[in-house]
Amino acid sequence: MKYSIGVDMGGTNTDLGLVTENGNIVQRRNLPTSAYTELEPYIRDLMREVESMLDTQRAIDGEAVSLEGIGVGAPNGNFYTGCVDNAPNLTIKGNLNFAKEIHKYRDVPVVLSNDANAAAYGEYVYGGAKGMKHFIMFTLGTGVGSGIVVDGKLVHGSTGAAGELGHNILVPHGRKCTCGREGCLETYTSARGIVQTYLELRRENPERERMLKEVPDSEVTSKLIGEAAHQGDPVALKTWEMVGDWLGLAMANSVTFSAPEAIFLLGGPAQVGEPLLRPLRAAFEKYLLNIYAGSCQIRMSELKANEVAILGAAALLKMKV
Amino acid sequence: MKYSIGVDMGGTNTDLGLVTENGNIVQRRNLPTSAYTELEPYIRDLMREVESMLDTQRAIDGEAVSLEGIGVGAPNGNFYTGCVDNAPNLTIKGNLNFAKEIHKYRDVPVVLSNDANAAAYGEYVYGGAKGMKHFIMFTLGTGVGSGIVVDGKLVHGSTGAAGELGHNILVPHGRKCTCGREGCLETYTSARGIVQTYLELRRENPERERMLKEVPDSEVTSKLIGEAAHQGDPVALKTWEMVGDWLGLAMANSVTFSAPEAIFLLGGPAQVGEPLLRPLRAAFEKYLLNIYAGSCQIRMSELKANEVAILGAAALLKMKV
Repeated sequence: MKYSIGVDMGGTNTDLGLVTENGNIVQRRNLPTSAYTELEPYIRDLMREVESMLDTQRAIDGEAVSLEGIGVGAPNGNFYTGCVDNAPNLTIKGNLNFAKEIHKYRDVPVVLSNDANAAAYGEYVYGGAKGMKHFIMFTLGTGVGSGIVVDGKLVHGSTGAAGELGHNILVPHGRKCTCGREGCLETYTSARGIVQTYLELRRENPERERMLKEVPDSEVTSKLIGEAAHQGDPVALKTWEMVGDWLGLAMANSVTFSAPEAIFLLGGPAQVGEPLLRPLRAAFEKYLLNIYAGSCQIRMSELKANEVAILGAAALLKMKV
Repeated sequence: MKYSIGVDMGGTNTDLGLVTENGNIVQRRNLPTSAYTELEPYIRDLMREVESMLDTQRAIDGEAVSLEGIGVGAPNGNFYTGCVDNAPNLTIKGNLNFAKEIHKYRDVPVVLSNDANAAAYGEYVYGGAKGMKHFIMFTLGTGVGSGIVVDGKLVHGSTGAAGELGHNILVPHGRKCTCGREGCLETYTSARGIVQTYLELRRENPERERMLKEVPDSEVTSKLIGEAAHQGDPVALKTWEMVGDWLGLAMANSVTFSAPEAIFLLGGPAQVGEPLLRPLRAAFEKYLLNIYAGSCQIRMSELKANEVAILGAAALLKMKV
């Protein structure tokens, strides 16, 4: 049987999985990324897990297994160079040449991209974007990421760093962003941005708050705001309405670029569902240029939240260059 | 010798030219677009001009001439369908099937796109973007258009209408746009937007105005504001500074999409030069996400203003699909 490996490298943990041709994850392993400060031991241990999964699979299948390649989704993962370039969240510092290091152990194709790009490509190969030629994926989390597919290919641009719509400036001179600039989409629709909106609203309207009255500012999360919304809390509902409006504007703007068939949404805060999706769809329609009316749907990712990163990384191996 | 035809269809006039393999326009003709209300007679007369140019060229070259195809840049020109779809500025109404109509006269490839896309592709085939794989073209004029090249191909998107960055909403709830929405880039950096900014500024600071004091509001043009800036008029200089800031922000945002090697600028208002380019470059640097620093240049189109439309239309024939 043929398998590929998908590696989801996060700042704290690395999840990896053995993936079948059809996109089933048949085994999973885990590595504590933050326990490493050098690339060599990290890759050594990563490849140990890879070999161990292949051995196990050989026993399960009762036949030879072949490895199609290793796909890696990593912060600042660069498709062109096969390197992770100075990712601020990693304890392993510098320009990390994954491909070169992995090739010390296995001579297989190694493909890298950032996590949002990988998620987008996972949706294309295994999820709801199958058969589409043009779509965009927005991922909401600690930050806001994006992956853009044009003519069936991920857009990596001249440097490999294309598709950073989370840092599109949505509101000129708006909220301060961690990138040092102001008004980035991420400051409004990341988990942190959502919390900020909620805190601002409850400060302005203390009498309207119901569910999270007793929760101190530092303990409010986007998840709690989601639950409060489902219980009808007016401040929480207003928060999601504003988030939906900002995200709808950003999505409508992205359509003027590549006229995608669909825009997919992924990530923890997006799980809230209707309290976000209702205002999001309304805003998208309101802000969409009329020539695109009806040509682009907003859809939730069809991949499971705990599988998308590994599947996306594995999917990168399917990309035509 | 091999030639192609480039057709620049505007609302008032249609310019067409016979173009050599190297991008020299060896003959030009003209047709009054607004004199037509039906496609058939328009194409009949267009093809009459085409045949006349080919006859003349045969005589000049003293040998057979072959026609590679006809490229058309037109408002709402759709690459996929070969049609001009309901362009509001045309006196010829409806969905105009150029390709089908032209084929009644000549069985040659017919390629259509909108004017800004054509200009971008002209820059790629014959101008300063030669050899680039990723770049964006912004065209300033009555409106603001754009053409986006990713991996050496024009981005047409799922509908054919990709690349409308003039209608990216730059300022939420900003200036009213002709498209019915608010805050589009076009409302700030088109010729009309530039005039609006000037008029607002002179109303607020009548004592600072120097050169255009005697010019009534209805006669102020972006060209006059350009001349005033070169003569040191503070209101005109401030106008271009603001236009540069808006355009720089829009360009920086476009980089988060496709990480282009360069952004090209074209069109009447851009001819003002330094009064616009200086603040534009400063704003671009200020608004650019740090990971892109130094990776993308702002450049003026290298094609002649009176040739770019015809060359761009002819260049469309060179596109790999």
